[in-house]
Amino acid sequence: MWLNLTPSRRLLSLRWSLIQYRNITLENTARKAAVDKVLSAFRSICGKDNISLGEAIREQHGKDESVHRCRPPDVVVFPRCVEEVSALAKVCHDHNLPIIPFGTGTGLEGGVGAVKGGVCFSLRNMDQILDLHPEDFDVTVEPGVTRKALNAYLRDTGLWFPVDPGADASLCGMAATSASGTNAVRYGTMRENVMNLEVVLSNGTVIHTAGKGRRPRKTSAGYNLTNLFVGSEGTLGIITKTTLRLYGVPEAMVSAVCSFPSVQAAVDSTVQILQTGVPIARIEFLDEVMIDACNKFSSLSYPVTPTLFLEFHGSERSLEEQVNTAEEITQSNEGSDFQWARDAETRNRLWKARHDAWYAAQALRPGCKAYSTDVCVPLSRLPQIIVETKKDLLESRLTGPIAGHVGDGNFHCLMVVDPNDPDELHQVHLFTERLARRALAMDGTCTGEHGVGLGKRALLCEEVGPLAIQVMQGLKDSLDPRNLMNPGKILQRGEL
Amino acid sequence: MWLNLTPSRRLLSLRWSLIQYRNITLENTARKAAVDKVLSAFRSICGKDNISLGEAIREQHGKDESVHRCRPPDVVVFPRCVEEVSALAKVCHDHNLPIIPFGTGTGLEGGVGAVKGGVCFSLRNMDQILDLHPEDFDVTVEPGVTRKALNAYLRDTGLWFPVDPGADASLCGMAATSASGTNAVRYGTMRENVMNLEVVLSNGTVIHTAGKGRRPRKTSAGYNLTNLFVGSEGTLGIITKTTLRLYGVPEAMVSAVCSFPSVQAAVDSTVQILQTGVPIARIEFLDEVMIDACNKFSSLSYPVTPTLFLEFHGSERSLEEQVNTAEEITQSNEGSDFQWARDAETRNRLWKARHDAWYAAQALRPGCKAYSTDVCVPLSRLPQIIVETKKDLLESRLTGPIAGHVGDGNFHCLMVVDPNDPDELHQVHLFTERLARRALAMDGTCTGEHGVGLGKRALLCEEVGPLAIQVMQGLKDSLDPRNLMNPGKILQRGEL
Repeated sequence: MWLNLTPSRRLLSLRWSLIQYRNITLENTARKAAVDKVLSAFRSICGKDNISLGEAIREQHGKDESVHRCRPPDVVVFPRCVEEVSALAKVCHDHNLPIIPFGTGTGLEGGVGAVKGGVCFSLRNMDQILDLHPEDFDVTVEPGVTRKALNAYLRDTGLWFPVDPGADASLCGMAATSASGTNAVRYGTMRENVMNLEVVLSNGTVIHTAGKGRRPRKTSAGYNLTNLFVGSEGTLGIITKTTLRLYGVPEAMVSAVCSFPSVQAAVDSTVQILQTGVPIARIEFLDEVMIDACNKFSSLSYPVTPTLFLEFHGSERSLEEQVNTAEEITQSNEGSDFQWARDAETRNRLWKARHDAWYAAQALRPGCKAYSTDVCVPLSRLPQIIVETKKDLLESRLTGPIAGHVGDGNFHCLMVVDPNDPDELHQVHLFTERLARRALAMDGTCTGEHGVGLGKRALLCEEVGPLAIQVMQGLKDSLDPRNLMNPGKILQRGEL
Repeated sequence: MWLNLTPSRRLLSLRWSLIQYRNITLENTARKAAVDKVLSAFRSICGKDNISLGEAIREQHGKDESVHRCRPPDVVVFPRCVEEVSALAKVCHDHNLPIIPFGTGTGLEGGVGAVKGGVCFSLRNMDQILDLHPEDFDVTVEPGVTRKALNAYLRDTGLWFPVDPGADASLCGMAATSASGTNAVRYGTMRENVMNLEVVLSNGTVIHTAGKGRRPRKTSAGYNLTNLFVGSEGTLGIITKTTLRLYGVPEAMVSAVCSFPSVQAAVDSTVQILQTGVPIARIEFLDEVMIDACNKFSSLSYPVTPTLFLEFHGSERSLEEQVNTAEEITQSNEGSDFQWARDAETRNRLWKARHDAWYAAQALRPGCKAYSTDVCVPLSRLPQIIVETKKDLLESRLTGPIAGHVGDGNFHCLMVVDPNDPDELHQVHLFTERLARRALAMDGTCTGEHGVGLGKRALLCEEVGPLAIQVMQGLKDSLDPRNLMNPGKILQRGEL
């Protein structure tokens, strides 16, 4: 870019950069002065032990599991209840300080980076499970409660919460990023499973998206605020409670592994199983690079070919029928016999291996970091996009094993990249853009479950168009007129 | 109220009413002048044959199937494509004319009444079914396409669209009111089944809520605009296309009728069937008053006691298992043997009788009109609320047979009322308010599927609280700053 400019343009550009730099520096100075001013107010709200200015703590709260660089907040607060969250938010609002909600830091799109500094609200101290209604299949949890903690709590009730993104994320964080994962093909994503939210807005106002304590299975009462906050990535408010739909633990579960001679055969089987209406609980694809990495990382010995991990839930009898149909289909596509995982321990080992794919991929190149793509396309386009993407990976000489929730048309290339090699980083960036555009050209989306965060803001605009972006910006302005809530995420307005 | 005022207050109140009246009259005069001015622009956009000022046409477009009185628009336009909708909206916007979208007029909450006059956009001429993707289980339809028309079109594809509110409503209208009905317990409501919308905003801007032509099974790309417009009742924009999720026609279906000695026994059976995890497709409750009315209206002869209509979908084998479990439960609650409806014709007759409940109720008192309540509560609260409500009906001496989608906790009292008896109307009003508050006290909602429209605006405020209402009002202001889109619905801002 720079080299294409005339000398006078270069000068102009340099001057513009200097003005920007001065503005940012002034902004930073003003913000840090504001932080100093509010500390005593923070202390009187949540006690001095629940406020941290330490560098290590701030750095820990400035990054998630993605390659996005750490952007530490100016201060981290650890409120203990919604009243404290509200009072702290009000102070931030009065002093124009950015507010960044923090759950477990297991996001994958840089969602917690304090790109404009400000106050990180770490919600781990609010970890109560409230109002379990086993007879109505619902429960309400505070933001410090993780997926695994909830399922451990539910162990003896015959109920479970199935949405499973792999990481032991906080449930309110999962609501904020509209997470899903391996079970979504059967049980839906957070969008279908959040019934109500308590949210603190940037000015400290506390709302309940469906009304306080309400939990009907369906409602047509006014605008669907619940699903506006689900997937809002902390940019509209701080989620301080979420009411979730629960499910009965199935009478029987069985998992199976099936190897295929080609990607096409594995993905064709997936599409056909879905089309036949088998209510499959999980159907996960791993390409030969991925299965090889998992074999090594988790001490397994599956054939190194494109593979499906499947899971069936139901009564003993319905399971038999589901399995028979699925096996018939995989065999007609030259799949291997199913390798079974019937008891809980073997099943858990299998799915742990699948969920450890992220670490298995990283282990392929020690010292490197992983970045996951996240496109999602209509089912029928899956074979073509996966085949084209594997070709692209080969041609680009990039390491990117593929794992995916193919039952939803969603798959990830786990790009393993040397963070100190700018050329490789650039190649990965170009590859992920090509992949996203390939998905967009096939009626798909650039993000099926990870969210937009920092890295996909430009792609979001390509995906929904500038007019829908304007509408989104209008909603943001309406709920957060000072742009204090997690600024710089989802929408692009010069906050880089 | 009036009688409680002091004489000077009465005078003040009278003067206020006169000022209001004068303002409304001035507003009406100005609006009618504006309508006169825009007619030639309308004609040049959609041709003179697609504009109607006739009284009969206007009256037909000023009311739905509810008791809300007819509020005819000033003019009805019949655009033929999204470009015409957009151009017409722009003209309305430039002249501050209210815009009221109209599908089939089968709503139940007065949603189409032109309470501030303006232009009714009747969308029946846009009736194309577009982009059927059988392999991906999705289709896109224009707003003139009804539920039955789509299912007729799909007849030979092995696919169907299950959401079924009874009436042959337009699918875009169903999206606008967040409709559901008898199949929601298995297949979800419009919220779960709309994948994308094309929407014309009040200023004529056309957006696609998930991006043009996109149809991935899941997405985390930005704010969930799709579910903001689903259920917005025409107050945020005009839905001109909806992309819907389709389902495979089940291998086998069977319906059954079961009579019970008491309401409690019927509703307990429902709750237990759901809790056991039977994937029941429909489970409808009719109280003894309702079944009696249906027997008479549809020439049936079911025992006049609380009754469940059930339907099971699945493979032949899974059906057997579902039915056995359900029968075991109903029999343990003293239910009768199942009366079967196995072939398509008998099943259709059964469900037609259920869907004709509305007319059957009206036939109980010829010359009267029906008004349907629509509360929805958590499953476990159903027995109590239905028993209390029946007691209330008896004590209030009101006719209100009960029919409901009890699998979702949603039921309707079909209030049959003499529209010329102000005392009875008042009694019905008081009863419906008591019922709604009973539902709110049980963590429920005042509307499970009919929407807020005109009659439930105050109850919505009680349900979600004034702060959530403020948020909703902010969203409305952001999308429709001139308050032109279907003014006076959902939110109350003096437009009565």
